[in-house]
Formats: sequence, structure tokens, C-alpha cells
Amino acid sequence: MKSYSRPVFFYETDKMSIVHNANYLRIFEEARLDHMRQSGMTYKELEDRGVLVPQIEAHVNYEQTLIYGDEFVVDIRLVEFNGVKFKYTYEIRKKDTNEITTTGYTCHCFLDEITRMPLSLKKKHPDVYEIMKNSMD
Amino acid sequence: MKSYSRPVFFYETDKMSIVHNANYLRIFEEARLDHMRQSGMTYKELEDRGVLVPQIEAHVNYEQTLIYGDEFVVDIRLVEFNGVKFKYTYEIRKKDTNEITTTGYTCHCFLDEITRMPLSLKKKHPDVYEIMKNSMD
Amino acid sequence: MKSYSRPVFFYETDKMSIVHNANYLRIFEEARLDHMRQSGMTYKELEDRGVLVPQIEAHVNYEQTLIYGDEFVVDIRLVEFNGVKFKYTYEIRKKDTNEITTTGYTCHCFLDEITRMPLSLKKKHPDVYEIMKNSMD
Amino acid sequence: MKSYSRPVFFYETDKMSIVHNANYLRIFEEARLDHMRQSGMTYKELEDRGVLVPQIEAHVNYEQTLIYGDEFVVDIRLVEFNGVKFKYTYEIRKKDTNEITTTGYTCHCFLDEITRMPLSLKKKHPDVYEIMKNSMD
Repeated sequence: MKSYSRPVFFYETDKMSIVHNANYLRIFEEARLDHMRQSGMTYKELEDRGVLVPQIEAHVNYEQTLIYGDEFVVDIRLVEFNGVKFKYTYEIRKKDTNEITTTGYTCHCFLDEITRMPLSLKKKHPDVYEIMKNSMD
Repeated sequence: MKSYSRPVFFYETDKMSIVHNANYLRIFEEARLDHMRQSGMTYKELEDRGVLVPQIEAHVNYEQTLIYGDEFVVDIRLVEFNGVKFKYTYEIRKKDTNEITTTGYTCHCFLDEITRMPLSLKKKHPDVYEIMKNSMD
Repeated sequence: MKSYSRPVFFYETDKMSIVHNANYLRIFEEARLDHMRQSGMTYKELEDRGVLVPQIEAHVNYEQTLIYGDEFVVDIRLVEFNGVKFKYTYEIRKKDTNEITTTGYTCHCFLDEITRMPLSLKKKHPDVYEIMKNSMD
Repeated sequence: MKSYSRPVFFYETDKMSIVHNANYLRIFEEARLDHMRQSGMTYKELEDRGVLVPQIEAHVNYEQTLIYGDEFVVDIRLVEFNGVKFKYTYEIRKKDTNEITTTGYTCHCFLDEITRMPLSLKKKHPDVYEIMKNSMD
């Protein structure tokens, strides 16, 4: 699987001249949806089946700062998955120095779009269940 | 009608130490939906009736900068309205000095949420049509 | 101390029709800087003295969702403070139902703006140290 | 010069299920700084020389919507440049259909970082002046 990577955008910085703390949750999301896509199923396909994937928990450790001019790489792993809940871990590094800037994790569940109730992926969408299970680290 | 006003948020700044240029369109939106609410109809009520109000044009003149620590006031006017399209103008001022920092306008139309086609407010929602017409400057 | 409160902004929502997960870190920041201001010292004053206050850790539990049309209240507490590091906890509630939607915490340190090295507030800015200590819960 | 292109990010959408109107100014910025980089000078190098490039005017025409799942391409042209002010035009297209979704322009000037006064690029940074002039369309 190809690591997710891109340059810092200017508008992601704040007046401390660093990437604003909230943007790391956005970067986690970019990497996560890219990971799903590479695993064989886009988030859009999930939505088209009426499955929502809200975030239920998030944690970020800010170890070093990213600044404008940096390019970063995200190493992401699906570390827990039981068909109802799942957890990803993230490691963001500067592309040129390989220095870790940020680590964290996010937890998610599957919701039925209509009822907004938790949904068992194994029962309702066994093919997606297999794809997720196989993309576990 | 009460002017829309709030302090600059830290996360709205960029590494030039000013409010990032894209955030003014967000401030325009805050002021616009507040203006609708004060006119007697919330945007949420419009949505509940299946009416969407997308932006079709926007213009911003950046005259002075807003920085963290500033509080701003937005003067907004509904200057054109024909039941299909409408246009608001905006003037953002620093609250303490009354200095104009930003001016601009946005144009919008009404769409049917299902068909995503333009919608005549006068025919479909005459009460909203009256409210909008009465809130014109 | 007055609780921090405001309506959800339309642009804070995403296509799941809820406030996007990253925006809660922004709301935490709004509440935190408001808490500092009410304690007797604005973040801008800290910056003017060459003190930066980066975030070093963040955690969010998403329990219920905020949607457009909601107004929220943030209960924030400074629960740890030793002059070098400090920790705030947050509880976001819907204003009308008092239902908790989101909880979390953030940790911060003080940095010298020039050296970007940690700074002892007690030694360098004893008056700010006292203000922070007194605002602890 | 290679066109700027990327997928829509999930967090760029709003509850109308389209890319939020303010994000197009961010996309313009991404494309603009990429255009400068490809012309032979990064925005970071300009900053390192003490040159700021604020936006003084912006215009957006929203013709079609971008949604999550779309990939877009930005055609950008430097259409005016006199060493003091300059103007870029933008055309955003869906990558798969080539359909134009958004057009617009932005105007900018050069400021001295210290004095925050306009700056003549030709006098102060003739090499950058040449690079900009040569990248005009």
C-alpha cells in the first residue's frame, strides 16, 4: 500500500507559523479515506450503500511542528476491527528528514444512514467486511 | 436589525498573522444566515422545506487586515431580490476603530433539494418570498 | 466565569450533515482563549510578551452530534498547571437540551517565541503564573 | 507547466453535500503557489526574503458543484503583472468529464514584511521580477 503524502498548504498554517492543531484531524481523514480506497473500497461506495462512518474518538500527540514548505508522509494502520467498531493509528513524518511530527489514532463505527443506528458490517455488507478485515495490519 | 459581530478566532489566522483570505466568505455566510434569521426565517426552516440556497457568485475586496485580537462588525444588505436570484453586499469593520477592512458581495439562487433545479420562491413558498422582499434594503 | 457559547456555523458541517470532527478542536480553542481572557489575561497579551502556547496533546470523544441549527455551550476547566505544562478539559452541551455531545482535553506548554524552547512561566512571567494558578479548577 | 490537480477532501464538503463555497479560494491558493513554484520560485523563498503577497481582491463564479468523489484540475494564468500588482485567473474542471465547475480571479500585491508597505519587485528583487514576468500568459 502506498503511503499518503502531500505538501503543507499555506492556509493550513496559523499565526504561530505552524500547521494549526485542528488540521491534523483533517490530514488523518485524508490518509484514512485513501487507505480505504487502496484497500478496494472507496468511502463514496460505502455512502452509496447507505453506510456512514462517523468518528467516535480521536487522539493527537503533537511532537514536532509542520510548517509551510514541508511535505509530509502519513503511515496509517488499521489496528482494530470487529465489524462494528474499528481503530486506525497514524504517524506523520516530514518527507525529507523522516522525522516524526505527529502521532495519533481515531476510532469509528458504521451507521445506517436512515436509522442512524450502529450497523453490523458482517451481516449487511459481508464483502466490505472482508475488505476491511484483510486491510488490518 | 442588529449587526452581526464577533471576535476573530485564533485559528482563522495564517502565517502572515492575518485572517486568511478564504475566511471572509465564511464570515459573509455567518452574517447572511444571521440576517435571514432576524428577517423572520432561519436557513434551517428553508432546508426543512426542501429549499437549498447555493452561492453562485462571490466577490471580496481586501482593504485592511483583521488580526487576532480584533472584533469585527458586519453590515449586510439584501440589495437585489426577484424571487429566483438575490444579492447581498457586505461591509466588515473593526469594532473599536470603525475602520472598513473588507467589502464584497455574494449572489445566490433557490434550488429544489430533490431536483436540484432553480425554484420560484413566489410560487412555491409565498410566505418566504414576502419575508425576503421585506428584508430588502 | 461565563460559559462559552455560540451557534453552529453552516460551514462547520460536512456531507453527513453534522459538525465535522476536526472542528471540535477549533471550538475547544475558542473556549480556551475565552477562558484565559476571563481569567485576566488575553492570549494576545501573552504573544506580545513573546510567549507561544502550542498544543502538545489533544483528545476528543464524540458522543452525540451537533448539527446546523444547534447552539452549544462549552464547560472548560483548567485541571493541571505546573508553570511549564497545563491541561484543560472540555464538555460541550446542546444549549436547549443540556445533552453532552462532546468531551475531551488538550495539553499545552509555554514556549519562548524566539528560541522556541520551553519556558518557565513562574520565573519569566510571575504575574501570568499567578493568573493561571488562580484560574485552576 | 503541469496543471494542479487533486481529489476533493471529505472535510471540504458541507451539508448540501457539495464543496463549501469558501474552499474554492483555498483551492485557488494551492494552484497559485504551485504555479509560482513551477515558474522557478517558491512562496517560501519570497517569504525568506521578507516579501509578503497578500490577496487584495477575489472573485468566484460557481457554475457547477464539486462533490466528494470528484477529482479536479485547475487551469491558472498570470494575466496581469506590473511589478507591484498582479492578477491570476482560474478555471476548475472535473477531471473525468472536463466540465468547468468554477472560474474566478485573484489580485495580489507585494509587501515588505517589516514595513507592511507595498514594494517594487523590479527594484528590490529583479530576479523574482524576471521570473514572474516570464510566467505571464
